[in-house]
Amino acid sequence: MLLVFDINETLLDLAPLDDVLGGTEARTRWFDLLIHTALVVTASDRYQDFAQLAGACARTITPEVDVPKLAETLRSLPPHPDVVPALDELRDQGHRLVALGNSPQAVIEAQLADLGFDALYSAEAAGALKPSPAAYALVEHDGEPPVMVAAHDWDIAGAQAAGLRTAFVTRDGRRPLPAHPSPEWTVTDLAEWARSLRTA
Amino acid sequence: MLLVFDINETLLDLAPLDDVLGGTEARTRWFDLLIHTALVVTASDRYQDFAQLAGACARTITPEVDVPKLAETLRSLPPHPDVVPALDELRDQGHRLVALGNSPQAVIEAQLADLGFDALYSAEAAGALKPSPAAYALVEHDGEPPVMVAAHDWDIAGAQAAGLRTAFVTRDGRRPLPAHPSPEWTVTDLAEWARSLRTA
Repeated sequence: MLLVFDINETLLDLAPLDDVLGGTEARTRWFDLLIHTALVVTASDRYQDFAQLAGACARTITPEVDVPKLAETLRSLPPHPDVVPALDELRDQGHRLVALGNSPQAVIEAQLADLGFDALYSAEAAGALKPSPAAYALVEHDGEPPVMVAAHDWDIAGAQAAGLRTAFVTRDGRRPLPAHPSPEWTVTDLAEWARSLRTA
Repeated sequence: MLLVFDINETLLDLAPLDDVLGGTEARTRWFDLLIHTALVVTASDRYQDFAQLAGACARTITPEVDVPKLAETLRSLPPHPDVVPALDELRDQGHRLVALGNSPQAVIEAQLADLGFDALYSAEAAGALKPSPAAYALVEHDGEPPVMVAAHDWDIAGAQAAGLRTAFVTRDGRRPLPAHPSPEWTVTDLAEWARSLRTA
């Protein structure tokens, strides 16, 4: 299979941003506002740089935030503990692994430099953020629909609309979007899911 | 001027939904989830009926919700206290007043039957919910950009992207979207704003 991973929160742990933004609660409000702002921009048929939106939303939540420090921390987030074993297991099974994020290409390359993906795609190249279908269309595949792996209801719903298969990772108790079909897989741990694919 | 009013929360008070949804906190979470879901659908280049989304989101927040009662209550919400004096004052000044909502046309006609608008527009007719530019394009005007009046950051940002002028109503302490230009007016009370236009 061709597996397409979302990046922030799905693969990478946002917790190191707590210190930059003033705590876990502020970080959660910042990320929610960032996603909301990105959705509004995309639903309005426009494009704005996701890294710049991240800075603007941080200043709204935490006026005294150190924006360069925020950007630096975003580029060096650690993977969640289940991620490296999951990617190793999936590669070992012969699957092709790529990532698709809303951040600019340079940010994604810095974030995922050590994880050995076959390709890294940025919505920047489409001039449209996920969940616009133009962003999912960037992923090159051979006709078989890829599987989008994401911890966000909007990314799963966008991938469904674009004709991809979907696997939802329930980080932090997140849930799929109402009034949408269930994802093909709903998993709490990527490494467990990867092992289950071997025996499926 | 041609003034285009958003409906739910901007004109109509959502508080009667508290009893249907199980309290103010549940109602707030329901409305936030409804807006989030509508934004995801629209950013994915799709359309879903807003009234059906409202029911599906209510069942997510309050599994035992009485959905027909929710629909009935939505159709009979009262205007905020500043609304009728504001509309009277604006009409008296010769402005043309219309409304544009995401709900189906029949819901909007039931909601605003007594408020004397010159025209009622539903995003249903565009096959795209606000903040898609297609929804704002429904409003017929003579070339002068209309003024969108809304209590929601996403509606102001969408109207700006579609080339409208904007007036933001800060119901419940709501704020404009980060990384966007300030609205032309930011007002706490529609009646005060209407009076200020007479003397401007």
